[in-house]
Amino acid sequence: MGRLFATYDLETPTTLERAAEVIAGEQSSGTFLKLPGETDRLKELSGARVERVTATSSSRVPSLPCRISAETYTRGEVVLSWPLENMGTSLPNVLATVAGNLFELADVSALRLTDISFPEEFAVAYPGPAYGRQGTLALAGVRDRPMIGTIIKPSVGLSPAETASLVAKLADGGIDFIKDDELQANGPHCPFEDRLNEVMKVINSHADRTGRKVMYAFNITDELDVMRRNADLLQQAGGTCAMVSLFSLGLTGLSAIRRHIDLPLHCHRNGWGIYSRSPDIGISFPVWQKFWRLAGADHLHVNGIANKFTEADTTVIENARSLDDPLSGERGYQAMPVFSSGQTAVQMEETCRAVGHTDFIYCAGGGIMGHPGGVAGGVASLKQAAEAAVGGIPAHVFAKDHKELSEALDLFGKKDGTGARK
Amino acid sequence: MGRLFATYDLETPTTLERAAEVIAGEQSSGTFLKLPGETDRLKELSGARVERVTATSSSRVPSLPCRISAETYTRGEVVLSWPLENMGTSLPNVLATVAGNLFELADVSALRLTDISFPEEFAVAYPGPAYGRQGTLALAGVRDRPMIGTIIKPSVGLSPAETASLVAKLADGGIDFIKDDELQANGPHCPFEDRLNEVMKVINSHADRTGRKVMYAFNITDELDVMRRNADLLQQAGGTCAMVSLFSLGLTGLSAIRRHIDLPLHCHRNGWGIYSRSPDIGISFPVWQKFWRLAGADHLHVNGIANKFTEADTTVIENARSLDDPLSGERGYQAMPVFSSGQTAVQMEETCRAVGHTDFIYCAGGGIMGHPGGVAGGVASLKQAAEAAVGGIPAHVFAKDHKELSEALDLFGKKDGTGARK
Repeated sequence: MGRLFATYDLETPTTLERAAEVIAGEQSSGTFLKLPGETDRLKELSGARVERVTATSSSRVPSLPCRISAETYTRGEVVLSWPLENMGTSLPNVLATVAGNLFELADVSALRLTDISFPEEFAVAYPGPAYGRQGTLALAGVRDRPMIGTIIKPSVGLSPAETASLVAKLADGGIDFIKDDELQANGPHCPFEDRLNEVMKVINSHADRTGRKVMYAFNITDELDVMRRNADLLQQAGGTCAMVSLFSLGLTGLSAIRRHIDLPLHCHRNGWGIYSRSPDIGISFPVWQKFWRLAGADHLHVNGIANKFTEADTTVIENARSLDDPLSGERGYQAMPVFSSGQTAVQMEETCRAVGHTDFIYCAGGGIMGHPGGVAGGVASLKQAAEAAVGGIPAHVFAKDHKELSEALDLFGKKDGTGARK
Repeated sequence: MGRLFATYDLETPTTLERAAEVIAGEQSSGTFLKLPGETDRLKELSGARVERVTATSSSRVPSLPCRISAETYTRGEVVLSWPLENMGTSLPNVLATVAGNLFELADVSALRLTDISFPEEFAVAYPGPAYGRQGTLALAGVRDRPMIGTIIKPSVGLSPAETASLVAKLADGGIDFIKDDELQANGPHCPFEDRLNEVMKVINSHADRTGRKVMYAFNITDELDVMRRNADLLQQAGGTCAMVSLFSLGLTGLSAIRRHIDLPLHCHRNGWGIYSRSPDIGISFPVWQKFWRLAGADHLHVNGIANKFTEADTTVIENARSLDDPLSGERGYQAMPVFSSGQTAVQMEETCRAVGHTDFIYCAGGGIMGHPGGVAGGVASLKQAAEAAVGGIPAHVFAKDHKELSEALDLFGKKDGTGARK
């Protein structure tokens, strides 16, 4: 059987070598006293191994409060590996191994899990995304350009009928993709089943008229029994996408719904800042996305260029590109990046260039609703921006004879096509 | 319907009032542009409310990297509330609301979710722990004292037969409770079913001989289908406790297994440091434990006094005591605190005094295995320490005519009964 590899960005009041050994011990066969059963043979078979230790910097003060004080706190990259025999091909148990009782250790004053590598056995155990990029594009009838999407706003408070009437406007405006806000769940204001029925009436009738079915990601996030029932209703109503909040479901919830539903899973990472905001604690996106792709995520939110949050553009793009990282085995398990958060026509050019392909979903809220030409104008501006990007024409040049794009660049950014924050 | 309240420890480059309004807006009906559908009536019905803002301190530098720079970063406590109509009585959707897209906001330079209050509707929707404190004690046949427990060590690498032979020794030594390490899952080294059968043979035969059944928490953490099958096997074999890793399961996984199994759920919070280690980002234990108790956690790990991690003793005790915090409705939903991590007879007295009751599980690893009197000596030392504490007799006095306690205090700490770190 293969081995599992994990990479950490670690700071320690002792030495990197010692801290790496402590983690390897804690997370496999060790404890704070030498035990009778911990033979050399057992350690050889079951122990985690320190594969590599590379110092990167040092500091006089610890990055996080730490019980052990020292003159110098050393930072570096540490790679550990585990025999798969310990935890088997079970993602929930892999998580407990690589991201378990490590972050509290007195031997570390900062710890981030930055990469993971799954041996090929996981490709047998986990199906990966059912639709991924190509399946989603085919289902939505979109070719050779990004899917243009939006989020129902206000996020909460609209009735099912009000939601459906907004969907009708968006469908008529030419949108490819619509999603519930992650706050819109199954509350009494707007119950799931009523919203589903009202919205699908509009979408199905629009599809009958035009031959194009708008993909709507209904938020099914809930307890598993409810989620399964709502997923069934969704499929019966002709829906083509289900949305889930990843951290609310957990890995077992994500796997369970992947095995139940035959539709793309639109995966929202709300709560993400807990893992990403501090440079000194957490789990990086390139790690989480591998867990999620194995478990079956089709679409993964990655924020957006010039977003309204704090994530840097370089991180956003690295994260989107990490969805191409090889997973275990030969199958690609490619998931679709979803750009969202303060997106308008302004960032389309840079997004296409930076991602390196156009198989992504580009969600704009205010960037569509706030367009002077209304919904249709907003959608048109985004499609024009995409067309310019795909054709290699600078947005401000293309805008010269494309009114909606021109209006969007005027309102949301600068005519030279560089992104400007709201 | 009631409202949901959440309390945050927040630092901001703007003002506390402004940051609180941004979060309230983002997490209910707002967005970055005023939208046509966002009427005053909709805001009144669906908007989150800022209930209270209290400044506590300020700083010249931001605690976390922040896109907005300012002369002063103000810190304080912010209380928000939401109408239950938005998300209904669904814990996964509550999590997306109170701990969703907040932590990345440019308007905060530190954010911790420190408290939550569920309206009484949740007591109808969620069953809470099936056994809790009293049910666990009754099932284990323990009265008026803490349960003495241990963890199988080495954590991984022992075969099912080797595990069972260690269990036999522990059972003969008088132990009340044994748990798998959270790293011991269902890998080829020690498959769940084999371990279950070998261990339960020993436990059942010991129970037949002595009338006392040792409670063994088998780690069933896995994908849901596997977890359910193993839970069934566990009940069929006469097992009396199942262990799960909370962050691996997620809220939906925890609820789903609670509804499937009729045994106490021993809940391990490995990965805890991600939420707790930084003073500037995360979710406090008093919040998580309410989610977990509603979803059905019977036992919750809280670390231990003088533990080998970095959590301060005051935090450990506050967290253990938070399991008494009132939840929604009248039912208590009391869960049992589990003390673990470098525990020996030394910390028993202080633990009993600080917790204020003795309905807890006290797990010692090296504190039992490393005792000069072997397993039986280690268990005896812990029971003697508990007896002293329950009787209000200082441990060092009680130790005068209790050899095993005396040996433990000598080896692991100081005779005056104060804890000493290993």
